Amino acid sequence: MIIDRLFNEVEKNGNVCVGLDSHLDYIPVNLKEKYQDIDEVLFKYNKEIIDKTCDLVPVYKLQIAYYEAYGIKGLLGYKKTIEYLRSIKKITIGDIKRGDISSTAEMYAKAHFEGEFEVDFITLNPYLGFDTLTPFLKYIESGEKGVFVLLRTSNPGAKDIQYLKVSPKDEYLYYIVGDKLNEIGTKYRGSCGYSSIGAVVGGTHVDEAKEIRNRYKNMFFLIPGYGHQGATGKDVSLYLNNGNGGVINSSRGIITAYKNYEDGNQRFADYARKAVLEMREDIQSESGV
Amino acid sequence: MIIDRLFNEVEKNGNVCVGLDSHLDYIPVNLKEKYQDIDEVLFKYNKEIIDKTCDLVPVYKLQIAYYEAYGIKGLLGYKKTIEYLRSIKKITIGDIKRGDISSTAEMYAKAHFEGEFEVDFITLNPYLGFDTLTPFLKYIESGEKGVFVLLRTSNPGAKDIQYLKVSPKDEYLYYIVGDKLNEIGTKYRGSCGYSSIGAVVGGTHVDEAKEIRNRYKNMFFLIPGYGHQGATGKDVSLYLNNGNGGVINSSRGIITAYKNYEDGNQRFADYARKAVLEMREDIQSESGV
Repeated sequence: MIIDRLFNEVEKNGNVCVGLDSHLDYIPVNLKEKYQDIDEVLFKYNKEIIDKTCDLVPVYKLQIAYYEAYGIKGLLGYKKTIEYLRSIKKITIGDIKRGDISSTAEMYAKAHFEGEFEVDFITLNPYLGFDTLTPFLKYIESGEKGVFVLLRTSNPGAKDIQYLKVSPKDEYLYYIVGDKLNEIGTKYRGSCGYSSIGAVVGGTHVDEAKEIRNRYKNMFFLIPGYGHQGATGKDVSLYLNNGNGGVINSSRGIITAYKNYEDGNQRFADYARKAVLEMREDIQSESGV
Repeated sequence: MIIDRLFNEVEKNGNVCVGLDSHLDYIPVNLKEKYQDIDEVLFKYNKEIIDKTCDLVPVYKLQIAYYEAYGIKGLLGYKKTIEYLRSIKKITIGDIKRGDISSTAEMYAKAHFEGEFEVDFITLNPYLGFDTLTPFLKYIESGEKGVFVLLRTSNPGAKDIQYLKVSPKDEYLYYIVGDKLNEIGTKYRGSCGYSSIGAVVGGTHVDEAKEIRNRYKNMFFLIPGYGHQGATGKDVSLYLNNGNGGVINSSRGIITAYKNYEDGNQRFADYARKAVLEMREDIQSESGV
């Protein structure tokens, strides 16, 4: 199952998920001048970073909004990047946060689990209810694919809905979501013990980290919020289990690390590698592995 | 403001929103054989339907999943369709249901309010919280753009999260969302009285229709669920105010209406027109206009 592949990659390469949120403003001018088409600029930037980091990381995440923003060419850059990642056997997460009624969800599944935008994992939004997951289950059951459903996010607005207290037990809403995902996910556990139905859990709120980790022992977490959004290695390590059971995403902290160096423009991928190494060490020293 | 344009269109043309959820299976074989590229097939199908219905409807909605499913070419079909709609001055809703942290939401705003995929309205998902709306507000404030945020949807799973009872008042969660949207929307009301921050309210659950309409007097509703999903003209008219204040979407019921007729393949757009007329009448007879 795909979750076993991810588990093994984490065992081997650590927990850093490189977020390729490739805003054109993040890309060095010299690279932008070299290629005429946006898709090539995006792809070449991503490829250099991938080539310099792929021996250090278990998985790459692409936030599709950054590509949608540049229209057809932008999405062509997305497609080229995930195709490349798959060709070198790296695991891919399409951070698409889709969520829709089942006939529509079927089309999203076709788009992101089969078509030109095929990735290994996607992120999903549960607001419309759990029937919206159904069209994805056959892909998960086949062992080929997995999902990370939004549970508790890393932004300040997370409190608006996810932290509402729900009757009759007066529990945070995100536990209602988590309990249900946990239940659905039981059927899709790999030999590593984790389910291919994982959850997105922001690394920025740490008060309930231990409770979340204990309550969902078989859930694999995609953890955003490291670096720019404020979560530290210590914070995010609370969501891990003996150094596994989760990957921690960093985007700007890695792909724009070069901006702090004089020779950054020329060596942006080297500085991405350096940032990955530092982040990996920060997490590992805290998770005691 | 865009909401005034929509209000006026509804006054003139009624409440039917044509949903261009253009699955290739819905498209007549003879049309599919005529064009080599998927973008052309999708566009020509949409264009014929648009040309035969545009004097009868206030707005068109494109569910982007149906285009994403066909990859780059599919999205090119999406782009061509919305460009065409804008060229003939019809109002467009991009049914994208995005929702993400603010830096990402900024990119979605750029994608769907500025770029190649520019539409007049988009749909948004509130699960991540209300800070995720912020990047869209400057577009709304300019008067050019509007949003419909998911409040209570038309699928069975709506009960899973939207109908949770929230402490301390033991109210349905969707009222928490609605009250907050209503509050944010106050600032963006047009001269018609409605706000450019509208809501998606499924037409299939009618028990609380009157309460929703009364509680959110200045909110314009995008109402899915008519036809295939089970809502009737009587059901959806409960969400209107003197025949305005909402548009009712139908997709398959209109764009595949031709399948019931022997000469449907040749005359699919004529039958789409017939379906629109019948639906418009069904709603108007019930809303007493």
